[in-house]
Amino acid sequence: MSLDDTTHLIAEECAPDTRSRILATADAYFREIGYQKTTVADIARTLKMSPANVYRFFDSKKAINEAVLERLIGESEAVVSGIADRPGLDATARLVAAIKALHDDCTRRCEACPRLHEMIEAAMAESWEVCRHHVARITAGFERIIRDGVARGEFEAADPAEAAACIHAAIARYTHPLLVGSSTLQPVPPVEAMTAFLLRSLAPDRTRA
Amino acid sequence: MSLDDTTHLIAEECAPDTRSRILATADAYFREIGYQKTTVADIARTLKMSPANVYRFFDSKKAINEAVLERLIGESEAVVSGIADRPGLDATARLVAAIKALHDDCTRRCEACPRLHEMIEAAMAESWEVCRHHVARITAGFERIIRDGVARGEFEAADPAEAAACIHAAIARYTHPLLVGSSTLQPVPPVEAMTAFLLRSLAPDRTRA
Repeated sequence: MSLDDTTHLIAEECAPDTRSRILATADAYFREIGYQKTTVADIARTLKMSPANVYRFFDSKKAINEAVLERLIGESEAVVSGIADRPGLDATARLVAAIKALHDDCTRRCEACPRLHEMIEAAMAESWEVCRHHVARITAGFERIIRDGVARGEFEAADPAEAAACIHAAIARYTHPLLVGSSTLQPVPPVEAMTAFLLRSLAPDRTRA
Repeated sequence: MSLDDTTHLIAEECAPDTRSRILATADAYFREIGYQKTTVADIARTLKMSPANVYRFFDSKKAINEAVLERLIGESEAVVSGIADRPGLDATARLVAAIKALHDDCTRRCEACPRLHEMIEAAMAESWEVCRHHVARITAGFERIIRDGVARGEFEAADPAEAAACIHAAIARYTHPLLVGSSTLQPVPPVEAMTAFLLRSLAPDRTRA
């Protein structure tokens, strides 16, 4: 039995663990030297396994990036979802908190990992299903808050799903890793001013054009 | 007299022309092979001049990029400024037209030049004064429209400058080259829906919180 076969057997037995180790190693490489320069061979060598074995778990570097990002993105989604369903807060307070949480999350990550944008760029170019799902899930959290605000008479929105999508798109300057990294140097209004501006669009006492 | 000296003399006599030729050549290189791979030596060789001569006009590749972008950006600014000052249109129509013009401009450029994002990324990293000026000038166009809308009773905005900055930041998903390139694959609301959403923030008959 070759070393490779043994590794395969071990991997088979501990598949979830091996998968996690590959992801953790890839994550560390992507952060350290960037997505572009990292190779599957680097990841395999660090884990003392063959590239072929890595490919048994992920069929491409793109697939590894997707899984790394899913984990990262999942955290943001859980935060927004948690705020959307938090009892005892009115809809306005929840929308403010959700936007601020996304912004703070993104800022912290971009500062901690200046190479994050490479992973995001690769995903935007190659893995738009992952991006699309992420946008859909964050927008769904906003939509729950807006629907609840409409039910409470706090907001007015003819189409809460569209309003949620507009708000998510409008805060890209504050929550998109490709723009947040540079935004400390760019003149954008504080996120609080932007949130207040967007909330005015949801105010219930406008005339309808 | 060496060839270099002669070139210097010629350059001296035709400085504006040489400057334009350097910019046109750099622009073509940046579009063709990208900002990162272009060297000042490439530009000089194409123009049959020495790199030292190029450096007499621009002290770095960064300075060349800034001048190329200034020209590109100047066109967008002129469009927005022209719309802001167009007589016979109400403020709402001008705001809609200005946002649409910026979006169309950016989309067309990103399609025509997929490597544009490299130039923008370099500028955002190294030349934030250029970016800052651009944002300030576009925002100034929006502000003129909003102030006029307030004067006409069409809009209500306690702080037109801040409202203009918020609108400009809110449309980044539609007008920022780093995001527009990929947006055909991403689920964002149509720019018309976003504009309508933002216009509701400026509607005059809200209660003040």
